[in-house]
Amino acid sequence: MPPMSFDDATQVRTDPDHEGRYHAEIQPGWDIRGNANGGYLIAIAGRAMAEASGRANPVTITAHYLAPGRPGPVTIDTEIIKSGKSFATVTGSMRSADGKPMLQLLGSFTDVEPNGEVLRADGAPPELPPLDECFVYEQGDDAEWPPPFFDRVDIRLHPEDVPRPDGTRSGNPLVRGWFRLHDEPMDSIALLQAADAFPPTIFNADLPIAWVPTLELTVQVRAQPASGWLQARMTTRFVSDGLLEEDGEFWDSTGRLVALSRQLALVPRPPI
Amino acid sequence: MPPMSFDDATQVRTDPDHEGRYHAEIQPGWDIRGNANGGYLIAIAGRAMAEASGRANPVTITAHYLAPGRPGPVTIDTEIIKSGKSFATVTGSMRSADGKPMLQLLGSFTDVEPNGEVLRADGAPPELPPLDECFVYEQGDDAEWPPPFFDRVDIRLHPEDVPRPDGTRSGNPLVRGWFRLHDEPMDSIALLQAADAFPPTIFNADLPIAWVPTLELTVQVRAQPASGWLQARMTTRFVSDGLLEEDGEFWDSTGRLVALSRQLALVPRPPI
Repeated sequence: MPPMSFDDATQVRTDPDHEGRYHAEIQPGWDIRGNANGGYLIAIAGRAMAEASGRANPVTITAHYLAPGRPGPVTIDTEIIKSGKSFATVTGSMRSADGKPMLQLLGSFTDVEPNGEVLRADGAPPELPPLDECFVYEQGDDAEWPPPFFDRVDIRLHPEDVPRPDGTRSGNPLVRGWFRLHDEPMDSIALLQAADAFPPTIFNADLPIAWVPTLELTVQVRAQPASGWLQARMTTRFVSDGLLEEDGEFWDSTGRLVALSRQLALVPRPPI
Repeated sequence: MPPMSFDDATQVRTDPDHEGRYHAEIQPGWDIRGNANGGYLIAIAGRAMAEASGRANPVTITAHYLAPGRPGPVTIDTEIIKSGKSFATVTGSMRSADGKPMLQLLGSFTDVEPNGEVLRADGAPPELPPLDECFVYEQGDDAEWPPPFFDRVDIRLHPEDVPRPDGTRSGNPLVRGWFRLHDEPMDSIALLQAADAFPPTIFNADLPIAWVPTLELTVQVRAQPASGWLQARMTTRFVSDGLLEEDGEFWDSTGRLVALSRQLALVPRPPI
């Protein structure tokens, strides 16, 4: 059986007994070493918030990550703070079955079509080799690595932005790559998934390769992606005071900027 | 009588009858043409959220701006979502006296001292001319311009980053400058004010000079600023689909990065 689609894996259903409450299921396989991927979680919650708001597209959404997600049922409580002409502003609170807070969110949503006007773009999609010259995580015999998440989404990495076979690294906290979902169209909720799908930039810098816990992720969506592959560039400029930011840019197949992301994460500690 | 200090102008007091509710007063003069400055508002709300959390320093805080602020009383309702070992995550909701939502917020706070370690800094404070060679808004006979806000905080702009006397502009959506509070120390709450204190970057680009409504502002604080002036660099790269981002970097007098900010704003419409 092929893995469940992103659309199926992010389904939410209303709770008939609780106004604004949604139920969802963290599916197995959307994790990195046991912790559900942060982009997958914000996509589930974002979908519940979009449904609550009656508007399909996040314009800007922020999630604070409070506890790791494990496969199983979750609830998302939503509250509409303001429903205006162009935007609806919604809070979200994702909890595991035992009631423990996992994600707290705040987002504004719209159903207004973007006007497509580009008045300024100081930037362009990254220069990427063709897909078949990029690095891909191949599922193999090792049950630990790569995690099945890299089979749930389709990611191809710039070969300069992955550790080399001899273990040396570029030294540059930069990750460029292609992203798409397997055999299904991408909407603005899929952009939330894309915003936290790539391996951490600092895996290419001189820092421990270990879990990089996200404290907060904000995704600003400019437009729905056209069909085809996204091109992404993730960078980190400042690693200080135990914290680092990771900035992402996402371009669709027409060369249009569709999203910007920024996350704040903890500097990983060397494995003991 | 000199203008009220920032510390006094951002005071909040608990409501003895409502758990988690704070009262504050938007002071006159902290506005740009009638709308209270966005940095001033997030500072008031951030202070209430910090008090509620029992931790003095925002690590990352996001505000969605729902209605303009006018002088007068406001309430801030706070809720602690999680109080962990290192961080407390808190929501905030600022409302005007008539109960209308003005700002909705989500932030994480800490009282852990940053470790001061800089593992990577791909960036440096902007190159600024000395203070006395920078542009300063001088209060004069015109009751409309500059707004009194520019007397409440102390801002000096890079002379290349302000429209020239003949009205021409650099064409570059970049604003660099010095920032401090008058005669009072700055803490991490003051960084929230600094994050939305400078004139919009796009006033230097080929776009209408008109109100640039902020939808969302996120400030990530790395450290408390040392005493003295901050140096700031605000840039905009993408103006598209009716939206623009404005990214800020803030450095203290020791050359340490103390905060990063990003806001999402609406492209201004030409005045009719």
